[in-house]
Amino acid sequence: MTTRELVEQIRKKKSFLCIGLDVDLHKIPKRLLDSEDPIFEFNKAIIDATHHLAVAYKPNTAFYEGYGLKGWKALEKTIQYLNENHPEIFTIADAKRGDIGNTSGMYAKAFFEDLDFDSVTVAPYMGRDSVEPFLAHKNKHTILLALTSNEGAFDFQTQEISETELYKKVLEVSKSWKNSENLMYVVGATKAEYVAEIRKIVPHNFLLVPGVGAQGGNLEEVCKFGMNEKVGLLINSSRGIIYASEGKDFAEAATAAAENLQKQMAALL
Amino acid sequence: MTTRELVEQIRKKKSFLCIGLDVDLHKIPKRLLDSEDPIFEFNKAIIDATHHLAVAYKPNTAFYEGYGLKGWKALEKTIQYLNENHPEIFTIADAKRGDIGNTSGMYAKAFFEDLDFDSVTVAPYMGRDSVEPFLAHKNKHTILLALTSNEGAFDFQTQEISETELYKKVLEVSKSWKNSENLMYVVGATKAEYVAEIRKIVPHNFLLVPGVGAQGGNLEEVCKFGMNEKVGLLINSSRGIIYASEGKDFAEAATAAAENLQKQMAALL
Repeated sequence: MTTRELVEQIRKKKSFLCIGLDVDLHKIPKRLLDSEDPIFEFNKAIIDATHHLAVAYKPNTAFYEGYGLKGWKALEKTIQYLNENHPEIFTIADAKRGDIGNTSGMYAKAFFEDLDFDSVTVAPYMGRDSVEPFLAHKNKHTILLALTSNEGAFDFQTQEISETELYKKVLEVSKSWKNSENLMYVVGATKAEYVAEIRKIVPHNFLLVPGVGAQGGNLEEVCKFGMNEKVGLLINSSRGIIYASEGKDFAEAATAAAENLQKQMAALL
Repeated sequence: MTTRELVEQIRKKKSFLCIGLDVDLHKIPKRLLDSEDPIFEFNKAIIDATHHLAVAYKPNTAFYEGYGLKGWKALEKTIQYLNENHPEIFTIADAKRGDIGNTSGMYAKAFFEDLDFDSVTVAPYMGRDSVEPFLAHKNKHTILLALTSNEGAFDFQTQEISETELYKKVLEVSKSWKNSENLMYVVGATKAEYVAEIRKIVPHNFLLVPGVGAQGGNLEEVCKFGMNEKVGLLINSSRGIIYASEGKDFAEAATAAAENLQKQMAALL
């Protein structure tokens, strides 16, 4: 998917909501556990109930690998279902990969070619040659971890490196990488006060923003500092939507929770 | 597996060789492609041919995810085969994971509980709470990326952060994490001149050292600066052993290549 198509979808739906599909079998309605593939059935119900309100879905690979073969199968079925039924949706494999060149190339193949995701999250620690194999894929997007939403972000990311902070160095250096126009960045909503600084370095790229909701981030503040001419934001909510209810009404509750966020977004657009 | 058991195995086999199982279907002997599970058959042949010379095997998850479901199945069968037939072998899931707490917890479950690997490689960028869920598993080991073997390591890892270099900060800070006695570190053989510095900060931990062979690292130099009272080194070779020959004799060639390295190690011990 091109960035232009993503922006068109945002304008049309008046939403920049990304829904995280972090499926935990302990949290989904019990009646789904009898089906052949409870993870996929849950995802399908959530997607059916929210696709008119969201522009992106983000399965976190940990929650699929945690269920081994059947988890991986559910991931394959989920991305297939999205690509076949909702080709306008932007899909994110939240995988946080990154390795030496030939290995990153294999990951890029796995997520971009075989599974046909539009984007994948990548950790920057190993530098240029660990990221460029992802960037080489046309009309695919690489979402680089910049300033993450967790407490541990202060361990290294906000430390000064050559007189600037590491996450700023990551932003700056990554701009020089080949095909860097395919880059987006992960920026935690819990660190909204940093977003203005981030926008000075990367004014045009999309930011994928986790941490609204369960982690305590503030939507309005993120938008105030982070929105650009193309909107430039994807706000992710996972648990706040998919586990809005653990009962039979989980899909309706997911719609309501997504609608709540979408309305706030429409007002901010 | 405990560190003591690993050290005992090293002393007994006079080897600290780790063999990387980075299987590429384009590179394995063609006759294997007709079998039901060529990736597993290849791994099994390599393991059978080299297990007396190596103390660890390291499948890189990218090379399995790159083949989707059948790749994941081959990974499961490979670790099962190792655990059932060679319980003395130290197993490494080279996955380079790392995410917010609950997600890292899912990865730890996937690799330590379900697949029953002894260790997993983890990227430090997200800090303490992204690593501690791995460290919480008893008799399991977390191998933190410190100074990797690729060129991109110079993008961030060797940059100065608060008057020291980032990789040194990673080493220092990680020592304060809960259960840090379960930490090992990835240190590229291509950066042997840094190993002495690294040993000043982490004298007792094991180092997993990729980059000998195909990437040009020097075994003798790494040992000179990196060996400690428990040996403290696992030297990985992937392509140099598993693709020593692409013909019918690939298993014999793997034995010969492993034996060559093992003899150098025996001399250095």
